[in-house]
Amino acid sequence: MVWQRPDGRQADQLRPVRFERSFTRFAAGSVLAHCGNTQVLCTVTIQPGVPRFLEGKGQGWLTAEYRMLPTATVQRQPREFMKLSGRTQEIQRLIGRSLRAALDMQALGERTITVDADVLQADAGTRTTSITGGFVALCDAIQSLVDNGELQESPIRHSIAAISVGLMEEDPFLDLDYVEDVAAAIDFNVVMNEKLELIEMQGTAEEGSFSRSQLNRILDLAEKGITELITLQQQALQSSP
Amino acid sequence: MVWQRPDGRQADQLRPVRFERSFTRFAAGSVLAHCGNTQVLCTVTIQPGVPRFLEGKGQGWLTAEYRMLPTATVQRQPREFMKLSGRTQEIQRLIGRSLRAALDMQALGERTITVDADVLQADAGTRTTSITGGFVALCDAIQSLVDNGELQESPIRHSIAAISVGLMEEDPFLDLDYVEDVAAAIDFNVVMNEKLELIEMQGTAEEGSFSRSQLNRILDLAEKGITELITLQQQALQSSP
Amino acid sequence: MVWQRPDGRQADQLRPVRFERSFTRFAAGSVLAHCGNTQVLCTVTIQPGVPRFLEGKGQGWLTAEYRMLPTATVQRQPREFMKLSGRTQEIQRLIGRSLRAALDMQALGERTITVDADVLQADAGTRTTSITGGFVALCDAIQSLVDNGELQESPIRHSIAAISVGLMEEDPFLDLDYVEDVAAAIDFNVVMNEKLELIEMQGTAEEGSFSRSQLNRILDLAEKGITELITLQQQALQSSP
Amino acid sequence: MVWQRPDGRQADQLRPVRFERSFTRFAAGSVLAHCGNTQVLCTVTIQPGVPRFLEGKGQGWLTAEYRMLPTATVQRQPREFMKLSGRTQEIQRLIGRSLRAALDMQALGERTITVDADVLQADAGTRTTSITGGFVALCDAIQSLVDNGELQESPIRHSIAAISVGLMEEDPFLDLDYVEDVAAAIDFNVVMNEKLELIEMQGTAEEGSFSRSQLNRILDLAEKGITELITLQQQALQSSP
Amino acid sequence: MVWQRPDGRQADQLRPVRFERSFTRFAAGSVLAHCGNTQVLCTVTIQPGVPRFLEGKGQGWLTAEYRMLPTATVQRQPREFMKLSGRTQEIQRLIGRSLRAALDMQALGERTITVDADVLQADAGTRTTSITGGFVALCDAIQSLVDNGELQESPIRHSIAAISVGLMEEDPFLDLDYVEDVAAAIDFNVVMNEKLELIEMQGTAEEGSFSRSQLNRILDLAEKGITELITLQQQALQSSP
Amino acid sequence: MVWQRPDGRQADQLRPVRFERSFTRFAAGSVLAHCGNTQVLCTVTIQPGVPRFLEGKGQGWLTAEYRMLPTATVQRQPREFMKLSGRTQEIQRLIGRSLRAALDMQALGERTITVDADVLQADAGTRTTSITGGFVALCDAIQSLVDNGELQESPIRHSIAAISVGLMEEDPFLDLDYVEDVAAAIDFNVVMNEKLELIEMQGTAEEGSFSRSQLNRILDLAEKGITELITLQQQALQSSP
Repeated sequence: MVWQRPDGRQADQLRPVRFERSFTRFAAGSVLAHCGNTQVLCTVTIQPGVPRFLEGKGQGWLTAEYRMLPTATVQRQPREFMKLSGRTQEIQRLIGRSLRAALDMQALGERTITVDADVLQADAGTRTTSITGGFVALCDAIQSLVDNGELQESPIRHSIAAISVGLMEEDPFLDLDYVEDVAAAIDFNVVMNEKLELIEMQGTAEEGSFSRSQLNRILDLAEKGITELITLQQQALQSSP
Repeated sequence: MVWQRPDGRQADQLRPVRFERSFTRFAAGSVLAHCGNTQVLCTVTIQPGVPRFLEGKGQGWLTAEYRMLPTATVQRQPREFMKLSGRTQEIQRLIGRSLRAALDMQALGERTITVDADVLQADAGTRTTSITGGFVALCDAIQSLVDNGELQESPIRHSIAAISVGLMEEDPFLDLDYVEDVAAAIDFNVVMNEKLELIEMQGTAEEGSFSRSQLNRILDLAEKGITELITLQQQALQSSP
Repeated sequence: MVWQRPDGRQADQLRPVRFERSFTRFAAGSVLAHCGNTQVLCTVTIQPGVPRFLEGKGQGWLTAEYRMLPTATVQRQPREFMKLSGRTQEIQRLIGRSLRAALDMQALGERTITVDADVLQADAGTRTTSITGGFVALCDAIQSLVDNGELQESPIRHSIAAISVGLMEEDPFLDLDYVEDVAAAIDFNVVMNEKLELIEMQGTAEEGSFSRSQLNRILDLAEKGITELITLQQQALQSSP
Repeated sequence: MVWQRPDGRQADQLRPVRFERSFTRFAAGSVLAHCGNTQVLCTVTIQPGVPRFLEGKGQGWLTAEYRMLPTATVQRQPREFMKLSGRTQEIQRLIGRSLRAALDMQALGERTITVDADVLQADAGTRTTSITGGFVALCDAIQSLVDNGELQESPIRHSIAAISVGLMEEDPFLDLDYVEDVAAAIDFNVVMNEKLELIEMQGTAEEGSFSRSQLNRILDLAEKGITELITLQQQALQSSP
Repeated sequence: MVWQRPDGRQADQLRPVRFERSFTRFAAGSVLAHCGNTQVLCTVTIQPGVPRFLEGKGQGWLTAEYRMLPTATVQRQPREFMKLSGRTQEIQRLIGRSLRAALDMQALGERTITVDADVLQADAGTRTTSITGGFVALCDAIQSLVDNGELQESPIRHSIAAISVGLMEEDPFLDLDYVEDVAAAIDFNVVMNEKLELIEMQGTAEEGSFSRSQLNRILDLAEKGITELITLQQQALQSSP
Repeated sequence: MVWQRPDGRQADQLRPVRFERSFTRFAAGSVLAHCGNTQVLCTVTIQPGVPRFLEGKGQGWLTAEYRMLPTATVQRQPREFMKLSGRTQEIQRLIGRSLRAALDMQALGERTITVDADVLQADAGTRTTSITGGFVALCDAIQSLVDNGELQESPIRHSIAAISVGLMEEDPFLDLDYVEDVAAAIDFNVVMNEKLELIEMQGTAEEGSFSRSQLNRILDLAEKGITELITLQQQALQSSP
């Protein structure tokens, strides 16, 4: 039996993706990223100085914070439950590592970039949408420093995007929505750059296990999805904000 | 010397106000309320049951939670500072009291309504925008219960809106923005219903003091602003969401 | 039907008020303030230095902390419940703002005054008793600095007192006790100086609403109560401590 | 060289001790205990039910909470420092164990007694004053249950009192004040009942050590002090409250 | 240039591994697992009942907790820093997921297994050692239930082991120690069962990126290491505890 | 009736005691102390600098931290319960005071010694085992500073050991195990130095009371036990680690 996707997509098809740039005004970069019904407000702040462990090394840093609004999910989540969550911390560490791979930290200089990913609506894929949308907001924020002369040139060296792949009845499917995410036995998150080099991969068998040949099919799908996402990022960045 | 408003408004003029209904999909009511540059996402959830102190009385309850996103302000605020704030708790208690005045709690029955006011952008007036926008989201949420037959009739008895007034150089000005809010010596928040009956008023002299005749001029301005806001709420609710 | 006050007072009559000065010895000012059965220990500490946001401006600061002892109420309150309370923070912010209005912060110089209001017994009116009693303790503490030569002259510019007024069956009553406070539909707290200028007013409709003419009757009562409280403060301060 | 006591007392002499009964009205027992300048408000609450580990055993329980007000000491202590303190928890456990020794828990039945010891002024000996004053408040609280018929007879089996003894220059002194407490190398707290049987003893060498013969002289002094305290407790309880 | 391993190992060689069974007596399973200098005390507790989300489904659950002792590292870590750590939560979630893959939860029945992994000494590989040693302790704990008749047959369906692989100068090395872990640009953790099916894989580029061909060489090494670890687990379990 | 000890010991007989030195490698001193089934990992870290209250006095400091692993007890204890415990803080303060009595703080100089006592298995006597084993680890740690030339001579002035004594049916017994500890009405912990001078004594009547003649018999037993423990410490320190 073959899995029928709830929204009729092909196995290798992304959900509709959209980046609303300049969604708010006070942050250096602010993008409301849509991936299907998932909505993440990605805002980027750049401040002088670095954390203590980097002081005096002449290089910069990027850190991320990730939270869901209580009403982002079908059932409202109490705020006090969310802040204790290990899952939340795990996700924000992943976002930070992934977006650091975009940057030449020496070229950034002693600045700290904070990427805030606040999930307004969660229909699965919130961590990958945070990375992919966060990259667009990062580009806007860096450009504002270049434009006002604080940076001579952009320290961005790579495009970064992320996508999920799930195994359903032994076959891989790209970019799961919530219904699929619950049904999937195996869940993969893959982060790549524009050369399709791997930055991070996490594969988790909630039940069962997976073989190396399945792993290869999963990565094939991820490469296709990330290629498309990077094109969409570039298109968004080339339009007027 | 007379205060010149940064955006050229008259002393008795509101900022542009807009309510984007159905901004997210999972909550029963979801309104992105704009008041000038202030943006508050007001979402309303209705759940069965009541807090312990109301159990068995056959009546409902409404409570509110208010938070700012860290990037809502010109300077990013660390998340850990925000959660300890007495100001935050004070505001969410005000929002709850104000919107409870809209409802007949017996007619609501043993249900708890949660109003989440998450500030995406803060240019002053976030608490009043939360109340005014929260009322629109509350209407949508109640209507969904009426539509699906859970409620026979709406328990909403009053329209509720709120506005700020500030004293600048002894004269009152309606609906301060952030620059004005910092400059004002006296800051008033007024909550009224559609009959211009007072639900809540809070006046605070950050410096100096105010007379009863000034108080009367402040309330005159508030009445004008609230009249206009209630008209705008009704217009928004009559358009298709 | 007219409200009969439990203790037989007139509508415009205060409860018995008493200030025990020098109740403890280590703080610069220490007053056990009684208002009917409400007892608040108001202690004032003055320390060199100011919070960071005021450094280098040559002016002082005053902050307040408010807590109830667990046995202050008819039912003992667990300590862990009290410390999380938004109400507690709201009250201590009100006390701080009100007593700051007594002072010329430039004349105070770079000192921080802490007013601790610890409620030993709560029979309603704890926040207003904290303000009124706190002012007496503040005077004693400032005088000790003048006496020992640390200050040339007192930075106190105004007397400050506070009182509650409630609406019961549409009519206003001065200085509610606990039974009345629970029964009142509308609850007002008013802070004024010796010229009867308003420093702060907070009016809350727990149910129903109030009109502007009721507001005026409320403020008339508040003026009468505050006039009497300021006289009592002066009498206490002129007696030997 | 012999230690000269700051207030001229003999080595075996207590400070002036006073118990103000019925200091507040809502708790079943409420005593402001003075021991020299030390002032502790001891309030006793009795509630139905017992902690989980005692359920169904037909016996009662007593627990104690101990806190200092921030202004109890010569230097004001920030509230947030006090609540983390291991010392605070150690003291309240001692107060609880000591006062449990007064009671026949079977005769008390399934009730929980809470003794709150709130230190208004701290001039050393706060834990022993809490125990000695707490016993008086406990008697008043139990008597109120007997008076209103909830208890047939009092479950109090023993009088309990506590006192400190310190070693100064190798010699023991009774009931240290703050100056002496800082100077003492060895600090003892002793809890006894009316038969001078030991309930609890804690001896701590902050520096140096002590011999068994010194221990005997310390206990001789403690017996004398506790004999006097128990007489004072009885006198207080026999006067009208 | 080729990486010379600090302890002279081959690229595909594990550190010395040892499992001390029955290290403590009160837990159902207790194994001190050594992997080189890394020491993790893995204890397994089995209790009746399941978390709320599984109630009434007739199946069991396994959860893990992971902590380091403050003195496990070369520099002592303050305890209060450790408990806030997102890394800690991420690791204990990994341990839990991995060991759940060993079990048939229906066969376990409504029991909750807690695996405590307390790191006594940390020389890298603490999470993989926790999983590999935790599996041995899990077998002992399950066996004790079988031996005392609580379970008819063991619900263990798979052996589980875990190992790290790092990329150093583009080449993969098995089972990094601390010095290597710091030097590695890419860090992989792989969890497999006895059929070399993948349960979990996490690959992180701290700097740079990795290709799919490197990924294949990493997994080849992991398969070799896990094959050896599973043999060592079996040998330990077959010796007398 | 005379108490029969569960393991057949004489009333004045210690359980088997063993000190495994150099149990872990990164701390300056690391001893796994066994006292019967009680196992405490005592690790000692020495760092430059002192707490603020000692700065500039040219002397050192010693502080202790004590925790149980959740699986140390017959019933696993949740970690979150343990960290709130007043008992935990009370014990670590006792360990710190006791081991400070071993040292000449001037000779130590401005260094801070941290003694971590992590209980791997708890069969009563964990606090006394922490002190007695902590002293051995302290000697090893100090010796390492002497060996590497950081200290000219050892600042250790006294041997320190601790033991418990309990009253069972009016008679004292040395070194209670868990079964005895629960049964004992009176529980004593005694800390002495090698001259049998008292450093700390704590005697607690969980029920009943004790007389001064019983106190003397308790101290006689404690002296015997501590004499033996100090001999065992010296033997352990003279063997090769």
